[in-house]
Amino acid sequence: MTYQAPVRDYAFLLRDVLQLERYANLPAFADASMDTIDAILEEAGKFTSEVLAPLNSVGDKQGCVWSPDFTVKTPDGFKDAYAKLVEGGWPALGSDPAYGGQGLPHVVNVAFSEMSSSANMAFSMYPGLTHGAYSAIHVGGNQEQKDLYLPKLASFQWAGTMNLTEPHCGTDLGLLRTKAVPNGDGTYRISGQKIWISGGEQDLTENIVHLVLARIEGAPQGTRGISLFIVPKFIPDADGNPGERNAVKCLGLEEKMGIHGNATCVISHEEATGWLIGEENRGLNLMFVMMNEARLGVGLQGIAQAEAAYQAAAAFAKDRLQGRSLTGPKNPDGPADPIIVHPDVRRMLMDARALVEGGRAFMAWTALHGDLSHASPDEAVQQKGRDYMALLTPVVKAFLTDRGFQVCSDAMQVHGGSGFTEHFPVSQYLRDVRIALIYEGTNGIQALDLVGRKLAADGGRGVMSFFAELDGFIEGESDAAMKPFVEGLAKAKAELQEATMWLMQNGLANPDNAGAASTDYLHLFGLTALAYMWSLQAKAALARIAGGDKDPFYETKLTIGRYYIERILPETSGHLAKLKTGSELMMKLPAEAF
Amino acid sequence: MTYQAPVRDYAFLLRDVLQLERYANLPAFADASMDTIDAILEEAGKFTSEVLAPLNSVGDKQGCVWSPDFTVKTPDGFKDAYAKLVEGGWPALGSDPAYGGQGLPHVVNVAFSEMSSSANMAFSMYPGLTHGAYSAIHVGGNQEQKDLYLPKLASFQWAGTMNLTEPHCGTDLGLLRTKAVPNGDGTYRISGQKIWISGGEQDLTENIVHLVLARIEGAPQGTRGISLFIVPKFIPDADGNPGERNAVKCLGLEEKMGIHGNATCVISHEEATGWLIGEENRGLNLMFVMMNEARLGVGLQGIAQAEAAYQAAAAFAKDRLQGRSLTGPKNPDGPADPIIVHPDVRRMLMDARALVEGGRAFMAWTALHGDLSHASPDEAVQQKGRDYMALLTPVVKAFLTDRGFQVCSDAMQVHGGSGFTEHFPVSQYLRDVRIALIYEGTNGIQALDLVGRKLAADGGRGVMSFFAELDGFIEGESDAAMKPFVEGLAKAKAELQEATMWLMQNGLANPDNAGAASTDYLHLFGLTALAYMWSLQAKAALARIAGGDKDPFYETKLTIGRYYIERILPETSGHLAKLKTGSELMMKLPAEAF
Repeated sequence: MTYQAPVRDYAFLLRDVLQLERYANLPAFADASMDTIDAILEEAGKFTSEVLAPLNSVGDKQGCVWSPDFTVKTPDGFKDAYAKLVEGGWPALGSDPAYGGQGLPHVVNVAFSEMSSSANMAFSMYPGLTHGAYSAIHVGGNQEQKDLYLPKLASFQWAGTMNLTEPHCGTDLGLLRTKAVPNGDGTYRISGQKIWISGGEQDLTENIVHLVLARIEGAPQGTRGISLFIVPKFIPDADGNPGERNAVKCLGLEEKMGIHGNATCVISHEEATGWLIGEENRGLNLMFVMMNEARLGVGLQGIAQAEAAYQAAAAFAKDRLQGRSLTGPKNPDGPADPIIVHPDVRRMLMDARALVEGGRAFMAWTALHGDLSHASPDEAVQQKGRDYMALLTPVVKAFLTDRGFQVCSDAMQVHGGSGFTEHFPVSQYLRDVRIALIYEGTNGIQALDLVGRKLAADGGRGVMSFFAELDGFIEGESDAAMKPFVEGLAKAKAELQEATMWLMQNGLANPDNAGAASTDYLHLFGLTALAYMWSLQAKAALARIAGGDKDPFYETKLTIGRYYIERILPETSGHLAKLKTGSELMMKLPAEAF
Repeated sequence: MTYQAPVRDYAFLLRDVLQLERYANLPAFADASMDTIDAILEEAGKFTSEVLAPLNSVGDKQGCVWSPDFTVKTPDGFKDAYAKLVEGGWPALGSDPAYGGQGLPHVVNVAFSEMSSSANMAFSMYPGLTHGAYSAIHVGGNQEQKDLYLPKLASFQWAGTMNLTEPHCGTDLGLLRTKAVPNGDGTYRISGQKIWISGGEQDLTENIVHLVLARIEGAPQGTRGISLFIVPKFIPDADGNPGERNAVKCLGLEEKMGIHGNATCVISHEEATGWLIGEENRGLNLMFVMMNEARLGVGLQGIAQAEAAYQAAAAFAKDRLQGRSLTGPKNPDGPADPIIVHPDVRRMLMDARALVEGGRAFMAWTALHGDLSHASPDEAVQQKGRDYMALLTPVVKAFLTDRGFQVCSDAMQVHGGSGFTEHFPVSQYLRDVRIALIYEGTNGIQALDLVGRKLAADGGRGVMSFFAELDGFIEGESDAAMKPFVEGLAKAKAELQEATMWLMQNGLANPDNAGAASTDYLHLFGLTALAYMWSLQAKAALARIAGGDKDPFYETKLTIGRYYIERILPETSGHLAKLKTGSELMMKLPAEAF
């Protein structure tokens, strides 16, 4: 069973659901004709399934190996595959043409990123974070820094990393201790230990560009005294080539439950030379450019692993003969029926499809809003794009990874005992995806960000705009075939709105009420968003069918969409009931009672 | 952080909730005074936390090692610990005094089993299956077989295994190919390959007693031609000591996601000598004695791992300083507050407590009914005990493992990034517990067993009896402090009853409706059962408080119980809504669409 990239589904999404060709007048979209996109999807499918997927299990079994000379060897084949990635020009898809990129909309890049991550999550993290470093420098670097680093990062010749976490500080960056002392020549000496640095050392690229949070000597305590520095592994020489070795080294690797092919490093900065990027003490803002992009990428990992695990489960379910259908043999000449005849197996496969295809649409739709926030000439569209990106990033990250993990676990369940053995790929998917619920801010932190920061931002403009969009859609639909979608969406939206009101009334009175409600609220939000995504997909499929298109793909879409509404969406009411109980019982026990 | 056995909770359960002393007039219970039980719980806590828990990580890291001479080495320390287990007399707790056991009620043994499994799941599987083999021979063996094997199995000097699965047949045992050819002297030659045999080979015991399903030459096809055989690794000599080596060997071990310390073996029977146990072609019935016991033991593993993972998470949450409480600093002199101040962290810890303590009560209450089905002099009580055991076994197995897995995943989440590393114990809990959702019949098979077999058995006598018990309880409670419990339970019970009616009406019309509803029905059942368990615990706690007992344990119980009702029980409505949608959309797509 090899990974099959969801080329068909992306073509439908980009052409029929998001209708990218509507935006052909915008600069970034001008080169993104559907012919170009079709070709990119096709090639992306080939590259990821043929080059990256075969190395996924190799990476899991071999892991990365650290040597006492502070080098790290990635698994066999990763280096070649990385070279092919660079040669193929894949990294440049979404990057600025000024620095060698192709400048395509990010929504197109999402397709490639999902496919890479499905094929090989551990591998795809190396280029994944590089793109984040590229964005942070693109936004915050000075021209010299941009000219020096962006072409190398856009092409992925050099890799980027994100150096935030320290042993005593992860979520709470105010506790950060890594320090920066000015050298007097515009550079700084950076000292401190960073942990959990993905790709902090590797043998794939000729240089590694660490983006490091540190506190300049004498800067304020807390988060208002944190600056961001560029600390290259090799200091670029006058020609911009890797020169002198910098005093930054990898002291060891973490032993982890999954993503063994990615080197999770302890990084020691020992008076390493660093360059300030952006303003002093404003490093967190800039790091959040990278972080927000990474959060969307993590949501994508949830869907990507779920897709891969679903494919493995579906293949197993069609192949494994065991028992007979409850409604009479379906494979009468064989010793038993394939287990896909059993409703409970179908339930898990249909849940997977409904969540993966709904989640994929949600990622792509969100990414499109991100593109429009830059590319649209209309300030209102730009603003809505920015509002949506801010509001939805935590939902994309946490909802899609929580659900992606559940899909991977169900995919293991479809395999029965085989799934628990390492002979089948699904254990790796489950182990790999689990980190996505944790890193770049745990899912609990995402929920708190949503209720504590994003909901109320700009007087609630983002969430009001989202509700208005749903209302407009619901009111505008009169097609009888859309009825189940519109009704399901309207009910979920009413519950989400009720929850939002509850939060506004009770979260201010006692902030613990907001915290206590946060995860249920985020899931209620995600379920509602996916109901909208399925409504949009249903509408696009119905339009195709009305136009005479006989491809069964569209009827399948309608079936999965209605399944989502009937079989997954009813979870909203449980979340609403729970969150409205507030924080009293949750917070009642003293800490010693635990 | 070392494992702390839940001695206090078991004392409350056995003394106050189940009130075991009520049954002091029954033979098995006569020796189970609360003094005896308290002493057993105390010693069990010591043995499991001091001897077994320290080997848990060792077992995970080393795993078992197979050698080309077909032997298997268990992890360092397992052999010594096993010897201590036997010396301590632990295995004999629940076994028949006629064969060296102490004859205590099984409900007491549940406590020891949970503690063993929390401390070291992989280790505790070796004795766990031995007890099942003991029970199968106790029920089905002839006197000679009992005399020969039971004392050795009751003392755990010898180990027992369960040889069911073959490469092409797991759930569907009708496809079984292992064959048995009569030797003419009452023995049989057994030939065939078995897979996934837990403890199929090890270095802990002087002999291994395989209970093997095989088809006698000429027997009918399908499940009606399967017999059960005793195939000892060493054939007992005239004195009952291990003699000649039998032709049964371990060809290798599975590489698995978890339970590395338990040897999961490929077992080859190569004309091995076997003894028929019970009647020809009735082997499945007897195997189900062992299987049903194993299923309850698996449900227990779900709770056991959840308890251990919860403890690790609670310790981490009290220790890790990160961020500040939303309602103002709680540790103002420290650099940050412990993360237990955050509502979303509390949510995960409270969910864990509510599910673990509710699930523990459910296991113990079910086990008590099993004891009464043998021990009660009242035929009606016996019958109810048998009915409940049949009805509830799939719920205990599947609901408690599904929820146990969720608790372990939440416990990892509480740990943040640390949880994903193998330096903390929670990754092992999550990886180990995952098998519990699969083996001894996947949770989907349990759900099908519940709706397809157990509900309708004896005209629905079991489920009607359960509903009548709940109604009686609900009607009998007038204490105002019990109101939230009674109301929650009544609502859940009404929903469960509605779902049961729906199944009766729609499952017969189309069996796929029953299959499509099965998992949601099982969860609705489990949620309702736990609401009853929390009601019983609340009532017992209130009685203590009314009696002037100031131990905060009882107020804590009430808080966690009310949290369960408010924060977990609302999930019932989602399950009801989902299951009533039937199988149409679930089964609509052709297999090729997956």
